[in-house]
Parts: sequence; C-alpha cells; structure tokens
Amino acid sequence: MRIAILGGDGFCGWPTSLQLSAAGHEVHILDNLSRRWIDTELGVQSLTPMDSIQERCRIWKEVSGESLHFHLLDLAKEYERLKAWLVEYRPDAIVHFAEQRAAPYSMKSDRHKVYTVTNNTNATHNLLAAMVESGIDAHLVHLGTMGVYGYSSVGAPIPEGYLDIEIDTPDGKRAQEILYPTRPGSVYHMTKSLDQILFQFYAQNDGLRITDLHQGIVWGTHTDQTRRHEQLINRFDYDGDYGTVLNRFLIQAAIDHPLTVHGTGGQTRAFIHIRDSVRCIELALDDAPEAGDRVKIFNQMTETHRVRDLAELVAKLTGAKVAYLPNPRKEAPENDLIVKNDQFLALGLDPTTLAEGLLSEVVDVAKKFAHRIDRSRVPAVSAWTKDLGSRVERDPEGKALKSVS
Amino acid sequence: MRIAILGGDGFCGWPTSLQLSAAGHEVHILDNLSRRWIDTELGVQSLTPMDSIQERCRIWKEVSGESLHFHLLDLAKEYERLKAWLVEYRPDAIVHFAEQRAAPYSMKSDRHKVYTVTNNTNATHNLLAAMVESGIDAHLVHLGTMGVYGYSSVGAPIPEGYLDIEIDTPDGKRAQEILYPTRPGSVYHMTKSLDQILFQFYAQNDGLRITDLHQGIVWGTHTDQTRRHEQLINRFDYDGDYGTVLNRFLIQAAIDHPLTVHGTGGQTRAFIHIRDSVRCIELALDDAPEAGDRVKIFNQMTETHRVRDLAELVAKLTGAKVAYLPNPRKEAPENDLIVKNDQFLALGLDPTTLAEGLLSEVVDVAKKFAHRIDRSRVPAVSAWTKDLGSRVERDPEGKALKSVS
Ligand SMILES: NC(=O)c1ccc[n+]([C@@H]2O[C@H](COP(=O)([O-])OP(=O)(O)OC[C@H]3O[C@@H](n4cnc5c(N)ncnc54)[C@H](O)[C@@H]3O)[C@@H](O)[C@H]2O)c1
Ligand SMILES: NC(=O)c1ccc[n+]([C@@H]2O[C@H](COP(=O)([O-])OP(=O)(O)OC[C@H]3O[C@@H](n4cnc5c(N)ncnc54)[C@H](O)[C@@H]3O)[C@@H](O)[C@H]2O)c1
Repeated sequence: MRIAILGGDGFCGWPTSLQLSAAGHEVHILDNLSRRWIDTELGVQSLTPMDSIQERCRIWKEVSGESLHFHLLDLAKEYERLKAWLVEYRPDAIVHFAEQRAAPYSMKSDRHKVYTVTNNTNATHNLLAAMVESGIDAHLVHLGTMGVYGYSSVGAPIPEGYLDIEIDTPDGKRAQEILYPTRPGSVYHMTKSLDQILFQFYAQNDGLRITDLHQGIVWGTHTDQTRRHEQLINRFDYDGDYGTVLNRFLIQAAIDHPLTVHGTGGQTRAFIHIRDSVRCIELALDDAPEAGDRVKIFNQMTETHRVRDLAELVAKLTGAKVAYLPNPRKEAPENDLIVKNDQFLALGLDPTTLAEGLLSEVVDVAKKFAHRIDRSRVPAVSAWTKDLGSRVERDPEGKALKSVS
Repeated sequence: MRIAILGGDGFCGWPTSLQLSAAGHEVHILDNLSRRWIDTELGVQSLTPMDSIQERCRIWKEVSGESLHFHLLDLAKEYERLKAWLVEYRPDAIVHFAEQRAAPYSMKSDRHKVYTVTNNTNATHNLLAAMVESGIDAHLVHLGTMGVYGYSSVGAPIPEGYLDIEIDTPDGKRAQEILYPTRPGSVYHMTKSLDQILFQFYAQNDGLRITDLHQGIVWGTHTDQTRRHEQLINRFDYDGDYGTVLNRFLIQAAIDHPLTVHGTGGQTRAFIHIRDSVRCIELALDDAPEAGDRVKIFNQMTETHRVRDLAELVAKLTGAKVAYLPNPRKEAPENDLIVKNDQFLALGLDPTTLAEGLLSEVVDVAKKFAHRIDRSRVPAVSAWTKDLGSRVERDPEGKALKSVS
C-alpha cells in the first residue's frame, strides 16, 4: 500500500512510519515540524537525542534499504497544497497523527487554547474536505483519545465509541445508536471531541471510510525498528507539558527526585506500549470499513492503573519516594475507568504489560540518558483555570512538596 | 446594560440591535461585514435596498436619538483585537450572531466548506477564550439551530437541549444527562454542533454563563423599529444560498414563477417571525444562568410546517402554482418534527403566526420590491455530494421543471 503518515515526525508517527516501511509499504511522512518548534518555544528537548527528520530518513534508507519520503506541509494552513498532494500521490491509506496533543500545553494561556483549536480542527477538517474533493478512496485512520469522555464517566465500562439508547416518542420507546457522549476536560481533549463530529458527518455525507482509535497514554521508547540504529531512536518527552505521567515518574526516579503525584493520585488512566500502539494501527489498516459504514471506533489501550499505583510501581523498581501535591487540573480526585478493548484483542493483539516492560525503560532509557535531564523541567506548570493557577503559584516548586513515602 | 451584538449587521442582528437600543441599552455592533462580501462574491443582493451599516447607524440616531456604535472586527481572525475590545468595553451581555449561516453556501465547494468551519469555529472559540482571559462576567447568548439534530430524529419531540439516559454499570443502571445527540446534515449545521461542545466545555471549566438558542427558520422583514425609516429596513435574501424556503416561495410568487418544492416537500421545518426572534433574545437576556450552571438551551421557534403545505399556503394567498423538483440535499424525503418550546412560552412569548403575518410579507415586501428581483437567482444551486451534483446538473433550470398544481 501507499500510506501517508500525517505527523510522522512525532512520537507515535515515527515508529509507525518505520514499521510500515519495514513491512514493505510505500511510506510518505507529511509534517510541518511544529512539534520541534514547540520544543524550541518551551526550551525543552527530548531526553533521547533526536536527529532531524531528513537525517532519520537517510539513516533508515542506509539500515533497511527502504525509502521514507518526507514532505513539509501544514495541514491546518495549506489546504490547497494538501489537496494537490493527495491528487498527485493518491494514497491507499492515511494515518492522521498531526495534532497538538498535550492537554497541559492546550491550557497554558489563551494563545495556546486558540492555537490548539485552530490547528487541530482545521487540520482534521482540511484533510476530510480534501479527501472528498480529490476523489481518492483512502482509508483514514485517526488517533483520538478516551479522554474525550473526561475520565468522569459514571462508572460504566467505556464501550468502543457507540451507545444504544432509548428515546421516548409518541408511539412508545425507540432504540437509537449514538456516539458515546463526550465530556472533555481540557481544550486538547475538546478538539478530539470536535473531530468525532467531523468524522461522523463526512462518513455519512460522503461515504469516507474512517477508523478512529481512542488511544490511552502511550509509554515506552523502543520498537524493533528504532533499535536498529541509535539515530533512529524515538523521542522521549518529560517536561511538564508533553511528558506523560509515567515518563515523568521515570525521570524523577532517575535523578532521585520524589515522584510527584497530583491530588490523591486516585485518577485512573489507560496505557499502551508504543509497540502495541504501532501494531494496533497495522491491525486497523487491515480491517478497513466499507464506504457508507459508520466510523469504526476502537479503544486502543491494554491496561489501566491508578496514578498512585503507577508511582508505587516505579518507586519499587527504582527505590524512589512518592510525594503528593495539589492538583492543577480541574478533575474528579478519584475515578474508576473500565475500558472495553475487545475489538483489538479479537484481531490478535498480544500486549506488552507495564510489569514486563517497565524495567527496560528505566535502564535503557531513563538511566542511560540521565545526564541529559534538565531538572528545572521536572515540575508541572499549566493550571486549568485562573483560580487553580493562583493556588499552584502559592506552592512554589519544591517548597510545598510534602514527601509522604 | 451594555450589550455587544456580534454579527449586528446581519438579518437577525440588525433588528435585534435596534430593539435593544430602543429599549435603552447601550448597543455595540461588532461585525466584519463578511456577509456583504459574500453578496458580492455571489453577485446577489438583498431584495430590500440595504444601506451601509455606518449610514444605518446614522439614521437610527436621527430617528431615535440613540447611538449605535459600530466596530469593524473579524472574530475569527483578530483574537487580540477582540480581547482588547472586551477589556476596554466590558459588556454585560454578548449576543453572538457572527457565523456563516447558509447550509447551501457551506456545501458549494471545498473552499466554502473550509471557510465555514474555520470562520464559525474560530469565531466562537476565540470569543470564549477571550471572555475567560479578559475576566469579564458577561452573559453570552448564542444563536444555534435545531438543524443540528439533522431533522432526522426518530420521531421523538425535540427537547430543549438535553436528554436523560440510562447507562449500564457494574452496579446496575445509572441516570445521566447528556446533550441531545446531534446528527448534522450540512457543514453549516455541523459547525453548530461543534459550537455546542465548545459551550459545554467553557461553562464547565470556567463558569462562563451561556444561553444557546436553537432557532428555527426566521421569516418576516419588519419589526417596529425597522418600520421607523425606510433606510432602516432589514435585508431580505432570496438567492439559492441564503434565501430560506419561505422567502424563495414569496419571490417566485411575485414574479409568477412556479413555487419550486424539492423532493416530495415532505420535509418539516420550524419557523419563527423576526419580531418573535428579537423578543426571544430579550427574554433570554433577562433570564441569564448563574456561573457554574450548565448551558441554558432554548428551542426558539413558534410553529412547524411541511414544505409542501407552506407552498400551498403561499399559492393560496398569491395564485401561484407549485412545482416538484429533484432534491439536491442529502436528507430523508419525509420527516416529522415535533419541537418543545415550553420555556419561551412560559416566559410570555406571544407568537406572530404565518397565517397572520404572511399577507403583509407578500404585499409590503415581495410585491413592493418585485422590480428588484434578479430572475436568474431563483433556482437553487448547491449540491450536497458529487453524485447529487451531477443529478442536478442533468436537470437544467426550468427544463426538467414539472408543474403539478
Ligand atoms: N502520545 C500519547 O500518549 C497519545 C495518547 C493518545 C492519543 N495520542 C494521539 O496520537 C497523535 C500523535 O501523538 P504523538 O504523541 O505522536 O504527538 P507528537 O506531538 O509527538 O506528534 C505530532 C506530530 O504532528 C505534527 N503536526 C502537528 N500539527 C500539524 C499540522 N497542522 N500539520 C502537519 N503536522 C502537524 C507535529 O509536528 C508532530 O510531529 C496525536 O493526535 C495524539 O493526540 C497520543
Ligand atoms: N436566519 C435564520 O433563519 C436563522 C435560523 C437559525 C439560526 N440562525 C443563526 O442566527 C445567526 C444570524 O443569522 P443571520 O440570518 O442574521 O445571518 P447573516 O448572514 O445575515 O448575519 C451574520 C452576520 O455575522 C457577520 N459575521 C460572520 N462571520 C463573522 C466574523 N468572523 N467576524 C465578525 N462578523 C462576522 C456577517 O458579516 C453578518 O453580518 C447565525 O448564527 C445563524 O446561524 C439564523
């Protein structure tokens, strides 16, 4: 297949591009490299040394003999070039990673809120309009998140995208299938909730074939391909905006900083290893919907953990302490999260669990590159509202840090 | 109150501005005049001769002694100027009409789809982010549409915004309130469905006070204020993009063209007179939610009619014939529409019905300005999909026009 990987320079996009190239597909990366600019804006960098995309593609050619084609293109701002690209290359499949993906970044200031909405909504909508207009029949695989449900569900297992409800009518109750109702908790998550409505419309009106993967937090650095050369290594973010909770614990442990848990740590999160994430995308590509089908929605995660249990797990592996801090996010202090992922299991996914994979992350990544850690980036920064902002300011880093275990 | 009317140069915004000014409020119109540019793009004009906004404001001052303040501002593109405006003027209330509002225009081409999504989503989101950032405590009243439900409901009465459902949990069924599920049928309607999610988020995260009015098709030209001077007259659109079904029937009747009904004419639509629309906005302004409340959603309509019954009504008043044409929209051929509007009735709304008001539209507007009608603008133009586009092309205007009554 000829596959376009939108956002193929990113954390998920890069190993996906490598894997699909290794599997014999013709892979094209489209990316505006905005994420590298955001690193510059924030003054942060990947823990792992990351080469330019052009250099990475060159190395891959050397190592594997396969070409990876890179195209610099802004999906959100260059509609006409995007359409021209689709008309010229006519991909069979498109994997869409190209969005601003950090919730804390999306809440930093009004400029960041506006950027996140403009970038993500226009990127996704431009793509859909250009697919229709160019008349190509590509299968679109998009990366969404279960975070659209706000982790504030009433304790019901999160089904894969849809919910059957009953509506009262003058002729009695009638069954109806609806998109599982969303309640996003950040501007970033809100944009994924908007994306769902765009997908529903274009699948229905124009028969676009769309799969939306509601992904959990992706952890892990290496895949079989990224291990093939040190310059193929994937990015590893640990700053307060882009570093996910697990990466931040790993880094804190590596520099003997207490593992900082916000609130009670009772928030439950869903996880998936990068290897499994890439594998799920391959499985989804092989299982495309037909024109006219509803959007196919999968939950792409393999296990759930409470944040405090995760901290304890890393603490046990590394000897680190755990510290509890006020929560800058507006969210319920404790929640359960039950997620259905029957569809990927049925397609043969065989997950790497945290219990198996975590030690290698500690040794091969966090400890190996510990000398590159910028300690000033370890505390979290963005507050969800003005009130919470002043609460957090009143707790300067380290000062109010209560070490509890 | 100091009230900002966003989109105050438009069909609904102008009479609303006049009425609120007449009622003693300090009224500021913010508009980028994009709608006048769209008239230029399409080569169409209002049936009623419409002066510049500056001239209209001058006349209003002459007639009423009250000032209307006009500010040229693009909500979607000028975030910083919008925020600065809010900080300087600190309005008590904001009425938001400033969106591209024609479904056929939104489906004309990919450029129109992209424009509609970018303009409407960025306008609404910029406004919300600027309200939070400027720290003002204004009540936001937005104009939405019941069209977000796609007129494809299963025959259930459309409630005012919310639906109580039951969700299965491991501990049994639990009740949950959700936004009434949407299923928009055009890119324009889709943007209103996106707006709802933006409102839900900002009401919940930042305590913004928001009322969303799900409005039916607005008809009628005059209000008490627009009658006070001929240069205060409201716009009247009848072209294939912006002319609503009723206006198009009135114009067809005025030039002895058959009234063109698409499909069977079995589609049911909700209607409201412009006087009642303005009155509803006043009622909504007086009934603001508190910070922390959910978004208040009203259905703003007073009656429903099937399109073919509407055609028969106009035919009876004017002696015109009715003609049935293929439908360029992708929609169910027949549908029922039962709408709840208990909230506005409870607040004292006393509607003007079509049966009462239609004759004056025929005489005072359509016949009076019939010499200004551009006959080439009478057929509808935008097709919803490429297939439907070619079907419509195969029926050149007039040619396939089967006159049936
Ligand atoms: N990483 C996770 O844990 C996780 C979890 C759930 C969902 N996701 C989703 O997966 C996708 C990829 O996430 P990631 O972690 O790889 O993020 P990332 O920031 O590492 O990669 C995103 C890539 O998209 C590019 N991009 C952004 N906007 C663009 C635009 N307008 N035009 C062209 N390119 C653009 C960026 O330059 C970057 O290379 C995102 O949509 C994200 O929401 C990620
Ligand atoms: N007219 C109807 O029958 C009807 C029915 C239901 C809902 N509505 C809603 O009511 C609102 C007003 O409708 P209308 O009929 O008055 O439309 P209109 O096109 O006559 O007026 C909209 C006004 O908003 C302005 N505008 C658009 N984008 C803007 C931007 N980015 N910045 C600043 N100004 C901008 C336009 O210049 C125009 O003056 C719309 O949101 C529409 O969706 C209208």
